[in-house]
Amino acid sequence: MTKTLRVGILGATGMVGQRFVELLENHPQFQITALAASDRSQGKTFAEACTWRLAGAMPESVKTLAVQAPEPTLDCDLVFSSLPGDIARRTEGDFAAAGYPVISNSSAFRMDHDVPLLIPEINPEHLALIDAQKKSSNGQHGFIVTNPNCSTIMLALALAPLHQKFGIESVIATTMQALSGAGYPGVASLAISDNVLPFIESEEEKIEQETLKILGKLNGETIDDAQMRVSAQCHRVNVSDGHLAAVRVKLKGPAKIDEVKQAFSSFSALPQELKLHSAPEQVIIVREEKDRPQPRLDRDAGNGMSITIGRLQPDNVLDYRFVVLSHNTIRGAAGAAILNAELMLAMGNLK
Amino acid sequence: MTKTLRVGILGATGMVGQRFVELLENHPQFQITALAASDRSQGKTFAEACTWRLAGAMPESVKTLAVQAPEPTLDCDLVFSSLPGDIARRTEGDFAAAGYPVISNSSAFRMDHDVPLLIPEINPEHLALIDAQKKSSNGQHGFIVTNPNCSTIMLALALAPLHQKFGIESVIATTMQALSGAGYPGVASLAISDNVLPFIESEEEKIEQETLKILGKLNGETIDDAQMRVSAQCHRVNVSDGHLAAVRVKLKGPAKIDEVKQAFSSFSALPQELKLHSAPEQVIIVREEKDRPQPRLDRDAGNGMSITIGRLQPDNVLDYRFVVLSHNTIRGAAGAAILNAELMLAMGNLK
Amino acid sequence: MTKTLRVGILGATGMVGQRFVELLENHPQFQITALAASDRSQGKTFAEACTWRLAGAMPESVKTLAVQAPEPTLDCDLVFSSLPGDIARRTEGDFAAAGYPVISNSSAFRMDHDVPLLIPEINPEHLALIDAQKKSSNGQHGFIVTNPNCSTIMLALALAPLHQKFGIESVIATTMQALSGAGYPGVASLAISDNVLPFIESEEEKIEQETLKILGKLNGETIDDAQMRVSAQCHRVNVSDGHLAAVRVKLKGPAKIDEVKQAFSSFSALPQELKLHSAPEQVIIVREEKDRPQPRLDRDAGNGMSITIGRLQPDNVLDYRFVVLSHNTIRGAAGAAILNAELMLAMGNLK
Amino acid sequence: MTKTLRVGILGATGMVGQRFVELLENHPQFQITALAASDRSQGKTFAEACTWRLAGAMPESVKTLAVQAPEPTLDCDLVFSSLPGDIARRTEGDFAAAGYPVISNSSAFRMDHDVPLLIPEINPEHLALIDAQKKSSNGQHGFIVTNPNCSTIMLALALAPLHQKFGIESVIATTMQALSGAGYPGVASLAISDNVLPFIESEEEKIEQETLKILGKLNGETIDDAQMRVSAQCHRVNVSDGHLAAVRVKLKGPAKIDEVKQAFSSFSALPQELKLHSAPEQVIIVREEKDRPQPRLDRDAGNGMSITIGRLQPDNVLDYRFVVLSHNTIRGAAGAAILNAELMLAMGNLK
Repeated sequence: MTKTLRVGILGATGMVGQRFVELLENHPQFQITALAASDRSQGKTFAEACTWRLAGAMPESVKTLAVQAPEPTLDCDLVFSSLPGDIARRTEGDFAAAGYPVISNSSAFRMDHDVPLLIPEINPEHLALIDAQKKSSNGQHGFIVTNPNCSTIMLALALAPLHQKFGIESVIATTMQALSGAGYPGVASLAISDNVLPFIESEEEKIEQETLKILGKLNGETIDDAQMRVSAQCHRVNVSDGHLAAVRVKLKGPAKIDEVKQAFSSFSALPQELKLHSAPEQVIIVREEKDRPQPRLDRDAGNGMSITIGRLQPDNVLDYRFVVLSHNTIRGAAGAAILNAELMLAMGNLK
Repeated sequence: MTKTLRVGILGATGMVGQRFVELLENHPQFQITALAASDRSQGKTFAEACTWRLAGAMPESVKTLAVQAPEPTLDCDLVFSSLPGDIARRTEGDFAAAGYPVISNSSAFRMDHDVPLLIPEINPEHLALIDAQKKSSNGQHGFIVTNPNCSTIMLALALAPLHQKFGIESVIATTMQALSGAGYPGVASLAISDNVLPFIESEEEKIEQETLKILGKLNGETIDDAQMRVSAQCHRVNVSDGHLAAVRVKLKGPAKIDEVKQAFSSFSALPQELKLHSAPEQVIIVREEKDRPQPRLDRDAGNGMSITIGRLQPDNVLDYRFVVLSHNTIRGAAGAAILNAELMLAMGNLK
Repeated sequence: MTKTLRVGILGATGMVGQRFVELLENHPQFQITALAASDRSQGKTFAEACTWRLAGAMPESVKTLAVQAPEPTLDCDLVFSSLPGDIARRTEGDFAAAGYPVISNSSAFRMDHDVPLLIPEINPEHLALIDAQKKSSNGQHGFIVTNPNCSTIMLALALAPLHQKFGIESVIATTMQALSGAGYPGVASLAISDNVLPFIESEEEKIEQETLKILGKLNGETIDDAQMRVSAQCHRVNVSDGHLAAVRVKLKGPAKIDEVKQAFSSFSALPQELKLHSAPEQVIIVREEKDRPQPRLDRDAGNGMSITIGRLQPDNVLDYRFVVLSHNTIRGAAGAAILNAELMLAMGNLK
Repeated sequence: MTKTLRVGILGATGMVGQRFVELLENHPQFQITALAASDRSQGKTFAEACTWRLAGAMPESVKTLAVQAPEPTLDCDLVFSSLPGDIARRTEGDFAAAGYPVISNSSAFRMDHDVPLLIPEINPEHLALIDAQKKSSNGQHGFIVTNPNCSTIMLALALAPLHQKFGIESVIATTMQALSGAGYPGVASLAISDNVLPFIESEEEKIEQETLKILGKLNGETIDDAQMRVSAQCHRVNVSDGHLAAVRVKLKGPAKIDEVKQAFSSFSALPQELKLHSAPEQVIIVREEKDRPQPRLDRDAGNGMSITIGRLQPDNVLDYRFVVLSHNTIRGAAGAAILNAELMLAMGNLK
């Protein structure tokens, strides 16, 4: 039996914050009791402060909640954070220091040696780093758990079964990323109209570094990076939601194409076993059609929590190539953090 | 002094056909005297038969020309062809058999062993294959010269200076291609709205094969393919004109990043030396800004005949990576064929 | 208690056909037992014949149904038709002649004097025309009921409460219509990229004529057109789903703005009273925000069956102006026909 | 013979400011000698301060000019202003008080009784208001001349010939406006992706009021508004450049459709007679095709200074309807101001 935890959302008025609100509506284990934002919306109700930008209407249950300052006096058992990078480091640190579990979508703490960079299907054992955090802060009871960058989650989920079965020597990923990844207002319409932007600030570095930590091995109180080379080129395209990546991979051992396909489609892990609320039944959906995955048609697969792979083929330079897609603000952000919290609740890290 | 040749256009009502008409308006060496199309437009004037889809108005000089059947009775000295692949093989062959020089943008004959796959800046010596063609057809005076696929031209132009200076071992290209590459009506608006399509029929194969021939060496009456491995993944994005490719390259010898940049920006060849009418002064424009090239801002560089390269960086898996862009219906199609004809006129292949 | 009727879909592979399939999945009263299409898909299963273009996956229940020719030998109790106009007249006539009730979204029979042009919230009494149809065809048991054009339904629903309460003298509507209204492939992406098209074939005439019949009065075995003047200018914009219209209206009698607003928001009719399965609770949603309705945010209101009105203001030339939006392939097409059938079942016209 | 005047640009780094720079490059009468901006770019060169967002490259001639504060110490004979509304009133007033002629695209002074709201083809006689300005400010030698809102210019140019020939009783305009009208960054890409926005701040009011002043009569030192009723509904659509309006008009006297068409296409005025540099030969281009004008195809007509009208038809409610298009940042903004200055130079208002 699961108890209901009271949660606060830091950065509640932003694009990812709104996804948190949407996905937590009617969640069986978490109930929103506090909303915070760093902008000038404090003191208003959420209905007044937040221009709702998702399809459908703002959930009734949050409309009259007051928007508070993102300071560690919120009335809740844990916080989800989607604060912008520049203020996340200080604010999330304050919340942890004050005893809150912080489940963060921000990049601020991802690469800290004692902070789990968690994808429940891949590295649930990394939660052991929480003990290291607690140890290093005598008397502190809070801690921080992060989820990776939106593109990295998708890539890591695609690589995980290959890494486990065959080993990976190198990966080349070229992304075509959606507008919602930049938040709101984000990309100017005049910048992307009839255009592609071949640059996203810090994105290539995040993919190249975070992937190694996610696929790395827990070694006592730290993570040993996975031994592989990762190359990322990132682009912004005129799509609202749904990141796409064209991927080539060189494996350590031999693998037939059917074995690769089978590794993808049979991939299932602890969240599926535990039947976590947000865990998709099918982690990786393999499409056989020659023109899939496509953002508009496939981003909502598994309620936005599955990733979709298609166009698996032998490659002339590395071993195999394929295209992978996921919903960048669900599996790639708010949904990722919520699944992290569900796992932590199941594993006893939250109470 | 150059004489004016009378040219016919096969496939004149299509997107590339219209570019031929636009680019040949006021050309100093070529004058359009015949227009042909395979659709139901025969017997009408061009103004009646062709819905003009380029910005600006249809040139006055072609409005009253009759649209004829694509049969080798056209009143002209040579033909430019942008016929669809399925009928190009027979029709272009008929024209060549009837004595016409055929300068083709179609894929039908590109990989024939005695047909030049010509980019004037890269392989002008491949024009020697024309003699092989003539020899094999006793009494035939016509011949066929082709230009590569739109994405391949851009990629080959980017690779040529590296191939010449350092040698290339392998290339990985991921394209984001414009709608005009699919002709008209081409891609349905509902298919591309808020979307990316990860598949373009035969495109990956064309890039992987044509590149080797273009960069190959003339060996008597045939071409020895370049020895390198090429991998292409192709995507359609919601952009009207301008193909983009994210490229990684592994060189045969060592090269510093400044040497690579210098190889790009100093690249100049026979068309520039001969000051051919359509040859851009700067073949490769290297942009230093972190967010260039972009289709909307850079596609018209050098009147659509320059390619633009940016984001040159060391790569974690191969040696270097960069992004390249060109105008797919100018440098990648009609402009390519016209530059081919200009070179051939200068070299004495047309008279 | 309702019985389950077996339904066939004519034009099942098109955009509206797919909406029929999607909306009838799990419908409590109708079960799809036959699928027909006029293209070359006959003889294949639906999964083979139909490229599914809606978000989500094709329902399992129809995948193995054979696609049949649209001929009146289908095994079903009634047919829904979204055949293209040119073949709809003959085919729907054949089905009616063979005894089938035909619930049609096509334009072919809409303006026939004995065919109901039905919007259940507005003119349920027009169903009496079915008797006229039956009378005129001795021994024929089938009949045809149509729903209006997608833009007309939206406009008529907005006008109905004003017509009933205040009388309407004239209406000026300027539409901005979505791509899905043109079917698939419909509008070429190159035609609409960075563009607006100020023309949709026959659309202005349909709106101007159909509106008068819908709001007209049953007079024995025919309909007397409503006495008002309607002006429509129609445009295609780069939106996937959701038609928008800017409307001015001149009323016959005086009405305060709050009375107009109240007339909209309180509008409720027979389908709401009967609690028909597809009837939205709120027929007209009035938004107070200054920048609503918007296609992407409001098209799915009421499961796509509500219309949304905003920006109600006094007008300098006519009396009032407002903006109205609805989902063009749900309330404007497939959902409209299904609601028609639900009403007919409730009223005893289907059995 | 014309002398060359030295001009400053206020708001030089914005979208309209960049158009000023582009259009004044190589202008025969005006030379840019000063650039000013209100943002944090002061002290940098224009090349450093301004991210060039138009196609093509920033003109060489302005790259090394220093960006200055918008204060009346600029070294120039007159200023063009595209300052944002909130600071325009004070800053433009300061420049006028300091003796500069101010040719403004801002809305700040448009409706002031002694400020010309000038469209050279329509109301050149309104320049007489300059004397009223000078009189009211003893010892002040500067003055302000404004051009209308981007949508209003297009509408007024379409109405002018009808107003002059037949008289206008009422006008109903529904606009579909381009993104560049909102400046940069302007509309967020997520806001307009797959969407239409039915609201543009203050736009409907501007069209409804400015039109009356433009078409009004000079009466001594003020303008008597034209006697007609104007209704505007404004929408933002996903188009980069080119505003479109669907217009209905009720005339005061009878006019056959051919007379209306003739009035449009024969419209020519003082700027054409004087052969002003930026004046288009054809003020109004009438297109006969059923699907024109279109933003992407027609916005650049007459170098962006012609307007294009199509779909002229009788209307069911008012007398006639048509669709009109113009380039919103050329004829609708920077080009409008430059044409104003050219007229003023020709008329002796600038020296």
